[in-house]
Amino acid sequence: MRPLFPFRFALLLFFAGSMLTLSSAALAQEQSQLALMPWPAHVTEGQGQFVIDGSFAVAVHDYPDTRVLEGRRRFLETLGRETGIPFAVDVPTDKGAFVISTAAPGEAVEQLGEDESYHLVVATDHVELSAPNPLGILHGLQTFLQLVHITPQGFAAPVVTINDQPRFLWRGLMIDVGRHFMPLDVIERNIDGMEAVKLNVLHWHLSDDQGFRVESKQFPMLTEKGSNGSFYTQREVRRVVEYARERGIRVVPEFDMPCHTTAWFAGYPQIASGTGPYEIATKWGVLDAAMDPTRETTYEFLDKFIGEMTALFPDAYFHIGGDECDGKEWDANARIQAYMREHGIKDNAALQSYFTGRVQKLVAAHRKIMMGWDEVLQPDTPRDVVIQSWRGPKALAEAARQGNRVLLSNGYYIDLNKPASEHYLVDPLGGDGASLNAEQKARVLGGEATMWSEFVTPENIDSRIWPRTAAIAERFWSAQDVRDVDSMYRRMAAVSLKLNDDGLEHNSSTLAMLQRMSGLANPEALEVLASVVQPPLGYAREELRHYDTSSPLNRLVDAVPPESETAREFDMLAAAIAAGKASPQQWQQAHDWLVLWRDNDAKLAPTLAGSELTAELSGLSKSVSEVAAVGLEALDDLQNHRKMSGDAKEKKLQLLKAAEKPKAVLVDKLVSPVELLVSASAK
Amino acid sequence: MRPLFPFRFALLLFFAGSMLTLSSAALAQEQSQLALMPWPAHVTEGQGQFVIDGSFAVAVHDYPDTRVLEGRRRFLETLGRETGIPFAVDVPTDKGAFVISTAAPGEAVEQLGEDESYHLVVATDHVELSAPNPLGILHGLQTFLQLVHITPQGFAAPVVTINDQPRFLWRGLMIDVGRHFMPLDVIERNIDGMEAVKLNVLHWHLSDDQGFRVESKQFPMLTEKGSNGSFYTQREVRRVVEYARERGIRVVPEFDMPCHTTAWFAGYPQIASGTGPYEIATKWGVLDAAMDPTRETTYEFLDKFIGEMTALFPDAYFHIGGDECDGKEWDANARIQAYMREHGIKDNAALQSYFTGRVQKLVAAHRKIMMGWDEVLQPDTPRDVVIQSWRGPKALAEAARQGNRVLLSNGYYIDLNKPASEHYLVDPLGGDGASLNAEQKARVLGGEATMWSEFVTPENIDSRIWPRTAAIAERFWSAQDVRDVDSMYRRMAAVSLKLNDDGLEHNSSTLAMLQRMSGLANPEALEVLASVVQPPLGYAREELRHYDTSSPLNRLVDAVPPESETAREFDMLAAAIAAGKASPQQWQQAHDWLVLWRDNDAKLAPTLAGSELTAELSGLSKSVSEVAAVGLEALDDLQNHRKMSGDAKEKKLQLLKAAEKPKAVLVDKLVSPVELLVSASAK
Repeated sequence: MRPLFPFRFALLLFFAGSMLTLSSAALAQEQSQLALMPWPAHVTEGQGQFVIDGSFAVAVHDYPDTRVLEGRRRFLETLGRETGIPFAVDVPTDKGAFVISTAAPGEAVEQLGEDESYHLVVATDHVELSAPNPLGILHGLQTFLQLVHITPQGFAAPVVTINDQPRFLWRGLMIDVGRHFMPLDVIERNIDGMEAVKLNVLHWHLSDDQGFRVESKQFPMLTEKGSNGSFYTQREVRRVVEYARERGIRVVPEFDMPCHTTAWFAGYPQIASGTGPYEIATKWGVLDAAMDPTRETTYEFLDKFIGEMTALFPDAYFHIGGDECDGKEWDANARIQAYMREHGIKDNAALQSYFTGRVQKLVAAHRKIMMGWDEVLQPDTPRDVVIQSWRGPKALAEAARQGNRVLLSNGYYIDLNKPASEHYLVDPLGGDGASLNAEQKARVLGGEATMWSEFVTPENIDSRIWPRTAAIAERFWSAQDVRDVDSMYRRMAAVSLKLNDDGLEHNSSTLAMLQRMSGLANPEALEVLASVVQPPLGYAREELRHYDTSSPLNRLVDAVPPESETAREFDMLAAAIAAGKASPQQWQQAHDWLVLWRDNDAKLAPTLAGSELTAELSGLSKSVSEVAAVGLEALDDLQNHRKMSGDAKEKKLQLLKAAEKPKAVLVDKLVSPVELLVSASAK
Repeated sequence: MRPLFPFRFALLLFFAGSMLTLSSAALAQEQSQLALMPWPAHVTEGQGQFVIDGSFAVAVHDYPDTRVLEGRRRFLETLGRETGIPFAVDVPTDKGAFVISTAAPGEAVEQLGEDESYHLVVATDHVELSAPNPLGILHGLQTFLQLVHITPQGFAAPVVTINDQPRFLWRGLMIDVGRHFMPLDVIERNIDGMEAVKLNVLHWHLSDDQGFRVESKQFPMLTEKGSNGSFYTQREVRRVVEYARERGIRVVPEFDMPCHTTAWFAGYPQIASGTGPYEIATKWGVLDAAMDPTRETTYEFLDKFIGEMTALFPDAYFHIGGDECDGKEWDANARIQAYMREHGIKDNAALQSYFTGRVQKLVAAHRKIMMGWDEVLQPDTPRDVVIQSWRGPKALAEAARQGNRVLLSNGYYIDLNKPASEHYLVDPLGGDGASLNAEQKARVLGGEATMWSEFVTPENIDSRIWPRTAAIAERFWSAQDVRDVDSMYRRMAAVSLKLNDDGLEHNSSTLAMLQRMSGLANPEALEVLASVVQPPLGYAREELRHYDTSSPLNRLVDAVPPESETAREFDMLAAAIAAGKASPQQWQQAHDWLVLWRDNDAKLAPTLAGSELTAELSGLSKSVSEVAAVGLEALDDLQNHRKMSGDAKEKKLQLLKAAEKPKAVLVDKLVSPVELLVSASAK
């Protein structure tokens, strides 16, 4: 077996190195106009630019790994899309003003802790990209693509020298395909997006109560009874693994157990704790189904299953989930209760701990390192088990103190419709993590954004993942003090546009969905409404309306992005106006927008009733227009230095209070900035 | 060998049948609100609608052909995208309110003349789709998808009975991948688009002077030296053929010879007439390279090549091109001249005729029916050779009189940036075709839209093909007197939106290209300019600027659609106003637009210089604003019943005359309607 901590020394060195330059990296990020994300460790900007025209070619001086050659080919294709210039891809590798040098091949199977650093020099007449390992080359190519922009001289990259390397070795995106299946093209285009922002782990959540998504030749009923026909064949899995590998991304499979396992039991009730019969779950939430930890046959099943899956997925890590066991099936099973008494297992947590310990031995016997969510950590959990913390920094710090390596996911739950800024400011070494000593900190491998899929489909998943995940990717890659939110939003907007070239649909899905729900080719008034509303935060959505696996996700709440860019800009305008710091252009912009919003309901209302999907929006549309009207009055008062009376203020705030209530499962994001204007106008 | 005219009898019957109902079909098309395209042969509208919800399922009573089952699966997927409702695709085929019945299996390889008719009944509580052949089922499913729209009760299809069948048996789209290679995904999504509008032949133009695009195992240098690395493997070809077959579409390959063959000669100069050396052509236009028709080794080469390719492409037809030989290499070759004298071959046309005759025997020996462009028709051309007419109705009629079957492509050249209405009104049996007798008319198999690819890339090809090709597809499918242009545009707009669900990018590529050329996420002013300009008609573009195979196609002329929808609408407004028939809303719309366009240059001009790609647009932008200002003055005069003086009119018309001149290879489409307004205001 390979040594478990080959990376720790590198990690410590790395921290020492980045400590020395933290202040300069943060300062550069705030001041630079470069639209790089994640922000590199060291950037030195120069004068002039490297112009890209049809003669552009890439030489590869060493290519010990096909990933470099394939990376060069893909780079030229992407650059072709980025510029519209047709670059020949089958040209010799010995000539070109862009020169790639790789010092050594990478591992046959990408390993945690391989050197991902790179050195990129852009001069006016040439570009040098060098790295100790193909992974650095792949990262450097993405950095160059971000540098390219249109100029009066054509497409060009500015003269710059970049020395770059990640802060954390594990920078992941989890995609849950159990709850809503995602076809291969969705997975692949999101892998392309991950590569663009230097994420390096696809955590593939492959089974849950609502579906089992990988073909098993040992246990074919897992998909025959547990997938509704939506699953990946083993051939497709191998294709995804190879696709990811070429992009410097590891694929870590998760098979959640002993709970979240209803879909397994549809085909194999004999490993369940309940009496069944089981069918694929159609409800959301924490369900009762749990494997039976007390039968040897359960472990015999899992041994075979884990053997098959560890052979299919080459990565060194194997995720067994382990979260959210409610224990009800255990409580209700007399045989299990008797077993617990006989063996001195005092409660369900101990029972799960027993199960996890057994499974860990199976995973280890198949030469893999086990991972699990917080719940798998017990005092006797082996030190090589990696803990993924959904509970938060406290749980993370406990695990690291106990000697286990750990990832943070709490704070990166992109299914909760939080703003990018909130995710961005969560640090794996923030909160309780900050109090760890250096050795404990080194156990914090990084983090993962988690795309739980109750409310996403292949159509809108990109808009839930992107562009916010680019900000999270920066958190995992860049220096800890790179945390200027304005700079982040500016650069994220640029990256968001570039992600279109990777085939991602986050910028196009909203309009297509509005067209569909309205039946209109140009649903302009609906677009205006859509631009200022958001899905509710957190888990509020499930309280506002009943959803299950068969609910169509084709309404406005599913179409609008989780973070309204327009509302965010209006927030800033309102804040500037309330603070007396707004420019005349800002006053004008706020006025024009409020007029647009105030007048929008009159345009939109007549069309809403024509569609069953939009009829429910009439109250929301009316409310948004009323809120805008209040905002406009407050703005006029402020502009004309009229003080609003206390009574008038109270009345307006009451109206705004009422408008805060979600309608049609949507939140009006104008309420808060308009409240600010009203309060200011009453001062 | 199969009988050559199995379809003729069916065709004659068909004509007789459609004659009886022509007037009703045309009337229905003009009056109906159904957004069907192509318009069906017989439509009877009823009351009420069939509502589609999550319980929707499709039963298949007979499925003698996997295309029906696969078609059902794809239908549910497309309907899922169209509605956002998740339909289970792995459900049993015995239950469902939508019932499919197929009378008999189709041919293993789709044949020209198979019965494509279908019968579709939509009732409030069920749908019946029946057909004699799987092809009709595939067509009927597409018709149903076009019927679905959002209503106050949800997604629904109106109650209707449709009996449908095509007028022509050969309804093709030619895609030239020789000049610009198109990757598989481009081909596949366009096949999906073809299926949506009931086209049934993909004519794949696979070789030209600028590239040879299919792997040959017999002659590997064809792609090694002749493709710049951009070609289809044989495995990929088989995949496309199967993909098309599942969608009821035949794939007819074209290998153009004896001219348009420079790319062949890069690897195999021994079959050329010139002395070489040859390299892949980088210029556009009619080049001199020609095969040597006087050497037996040429035919030995072609026999092997045709043997390999006829085995790869299962269709009964094999296209050998044969167009545009300038004969210069033959004139310059003393050995060829001596051969012609010896054999009494009097000129180059006769030499090509000799070549074509030899090749026809090779094609026939490999059990295929040869096709070629007009030039292959000579008095002694065998009667089974199919002629594709690029020259026009006269050449088409001659071929039909001579006894050959024939297709019309003249009039359907979608690379020439003509309006849909112009293509739409060209009929394969119009012009000289109308004077043919019934037997001769039966030889007119149909037609093909031709996407020559000098000025298209994978990025913008969809916007050149769609939606205009939907109008051409209607010409090939629907009754001859279905030709109401307003109805066509209305229905084409609806179909254009639905084509998004097939992955086509014609509605999204323009914005992406404007973003790229401007470097702006929201290039609004550039969009305004883009909405009223068009590429020049016909071949004018090549006279305005030099282009070759390495020219980036990333400027405004490449981004805007070939037909400006906004300009067409403004044309109608201007005509209504000039005729004194405009409504107050139309006056207002014209006024608002003219103000927008007049004021646009002031917004746009400052940003243009920032990009090398947009700097050239400053003159065009200024001119468009000036033209709009003239239009606005004329509109004001008309509205206020002021008569413009003759002098003022002359001055304005001079300004408009100057504005007609293309700028930055673009034409201002406002000039003509503004001229109309000026002329009207001087009356």
